[in-house]
Amino acid sequence: MSQTRFGFCSQCYITQHNKRHIDNVLVYSSAGSCLNNSQFCNQQGHRQADGGQRMKTVIVVHGGAWSIPDALAESSVAGVKAAARAGDAVLRTGRSAIDAVETAVRCLEDDPTFDAGHGSVLNISGEVELDSIIMDGETLAAGAVASVRNIANPVSLARAVMEKTDHVMLTDRGASMFAEHIGTPVAHDLVTELERKEWEHSKSYPDGVKKFFNTQWGHDTVGAVALDSSGNVACATSTGGIRNKMVGRVGDSPIIGSGGYADNRSGAVSCTGHGESILKVTLARLILFHVEQGKSAVGAAEASLQYMSQRVKGCGGAVLLSSTGDWTASFTTPRMAWASVKEDILHYGLNPKEHFTEMLK
Amino acid sequence: MSQTRFGFCSQCYITQHNKRHIDNVLVYSSAGSCLNNSQFCNQQGHRQADGGQRMKTVIVVHGGAWSIPDALAESSVAGVKAAARAGDAVLRTGRSAIDAVETAVRCLEDDPTFDAGHGSVLNISGEVELDSIIMDGETLAAGAVASVRNIANPVSLARAVMEKTDHVMLTDRGASMFAEHIGTPVAHDLVTELERKEWEHSKSYPDGVKKFFNTQWGHDTVGAVALDSSGNVACATSTGGIRNKMVGRVGDSPIIGSGGYADNRSGAVSCTGHGESILKVTLARLILFHVEQGKSAVGAAEASLQYMSQRVKGCGGAVLLSSTGDWTASFTTPRMAWASVKEDILHYGLNPKEHFTEMLK
Repeated sequence: MSQTRFGFCSQCYITQHNKRHIDNVLVYSSAGSCLNNSQFCNQQGHRQADGGQRMKTVIVVHGGAWSIPDALAESSVAGVKAAARAGDAVLRTGRSAIDAVETAVRCLEDDPTFDAGHGSVLNISGEVELDSIIMDGETLAAGAVASVRNIANPVSLARAVMEKTDHVMLTDRGASMFAEHIGTPVAHDLVTELERKEWEHSKSYPDGVKKFFNTQWGHDTVGAVALDSSGNVACATSTGGIRNKMVGRVGDSPIIGSGGYADNRSGAVSCTGHGESILKVTLARLILFHVEQGKSAVGAAEASLQYMSQRVKGCGGAVLLSSTGDWTASFTTPRMAWASVKEDILHYGLNPKEHFTEMLK
Repeated sequence: MSQTRFGFCSQCYITQHNKRHIDNVLVYSSAGSCLNNSQFCNQQGHRQADGGQRMKTVIVVHGGAWSIPDALAESSVAGVKAAARAGDAVLRTGRSAIDAVETAVRCLEDDPTFDAGHGSVLNISGEVELDSIIMDGETLAAGAVASVRNIANPVSLARAVMEKTDHVMLTDRGASMFAEHIGTPVAHDLVTELERKEWEHSKSYPDGVKKFFNTQWGHDTVGAVALDSSGNVACATSTGGIRNKMVGRVGDSPIIGSGGYADNRSGAVSCTGHGESILKVTLARLILFHVEQGKSAVGAAEASLQYMSQRVKGCGGAVLLSSTGDWTASFTTPRMAWASVKEDILHYGLNPKEHFTEMLK
């Protein structure tokens, strides 16, 4: 196995890419490729680049991978751009990646364009049931809620699960009890007039969920990943799920390793698409295993989405941010609204291979 | 990278261990090790060994990794032995791995010794809330229920979710509605007198969940993995969770990739232990990634449990069965009751490094 000596972390001699210890010198296997030249690691407590320089921050958000109709194209792009800028503003003040992804996802939950929080789709009983996860790549701490009702911002409730309980996940009745316990306001205005009409219309279709996915009647998930100035990554995902889902149905969104995963040793991922397919391949964790094996961000995301397509015939998308700042927004659906901010440049797109940029300021 | 030519699958030239195509000849990377000498693969439709021989069946079960008190030692071992024999009896008739793991887990759910089904622990409100998953390694189809009440055999409800809905997971209210819809009997006798007393006793402790885990007051999860005569693997896991858990708390057990995972291309895993820690490292999927990388069953399980211990300070256990029949029952807790049947030999144990055998018949 050929090896390339590459320097070492000033604190523990470990990098996150195909790391091996040989005489305290870092080596990269021939299968690996370093994503940048920074000589630092992501062990807890060793979070700054050599010389004490602060990391360049990055945020990437998505508004769901599906057949977004033209009528929603403009508002979808405007929504993800606004969310990315909001998350970036948090990072610029030196706050954490967790703060940034929560802020970005709250923006998307509050925007009725997206299927999360206000504007979520309705289940077979005409109710909004919400799922969300948030995860801290430094400690692997995570919080999730599933099938929760009457909450405007499930991502913040998920964060409260992470920070205020000994648990990772609360469902339905228990999540609502916890929300009430911590004083989360009850939201009665989550259902939009548009969604009520589309739900009524969809009831005339006979085949339920399968028919709606990957059509204009589908509707899907928001998420964000961020890298903060201390070198920590985080992810968050939130959804109202799929229209006409069974009561209590949970897709990938609140499931650790499927709808999202964050680990300072590799990166952070938020997924979107056909939830049942994403679950079957634990897409978020699969993508990060590819990063650990030395793949670039785009290579890891595309290989994993391709595998999901071949193995379980599911399509979807993901935003991925490696812990070195390499990022991608990839999808196999007709469209996915996404946006990113890195080094004062706002990147965004909607259609395949579309990549626009704007200078900020 | 050194390579060893090793023969090829008669149908598609692929094995599941560090597979690479080079001129249609299998090669194993120097990092890999083949778990046996069978020259077949696990692609869908290529499920029999060369020559049409039927696979030798295997089942491995566990009754939970925790500080099992001496008072429960004998019944725990008897319970897992009975469950392994029940699962083995299913496999001997040529039925599927899914049938075998469901049968074995139903045995454990019905045995009040174990924290699943009848005999489950109580949550902070004095209720039984149950979680379960089942997964088919051939198709990656999976079914799961979380926070469901008044059901004797959640593993069978999880199987119904897999087979009778378009979804993978149902929670709480939705799971109960589905159970009623398919005619699952309501169970009102899940709480044992012993558990009611222990729950009353535990309420005098101030610190809740953390105090109870890894003490005699902890209590944890059952599961099974199987390989059938067609070469398909499956897993199932079921639990009442952790005593005094919050209402609606879900640990690893019903979470795909954490409490269990099954894939004919690598193997099947069922996990047990501190649920929140298992979730943070997606233990089941992590173990199978190690198998995919060429590790033996015991090597993959031990490396993953060690990682969980180091990274998030969690302990637990797992039963792992590779798709070639290599298996292990590994744990980092003081005890885990486990049993396996392979080639007419019943294997079982409770304490670390304990491995007893009995000839069947």
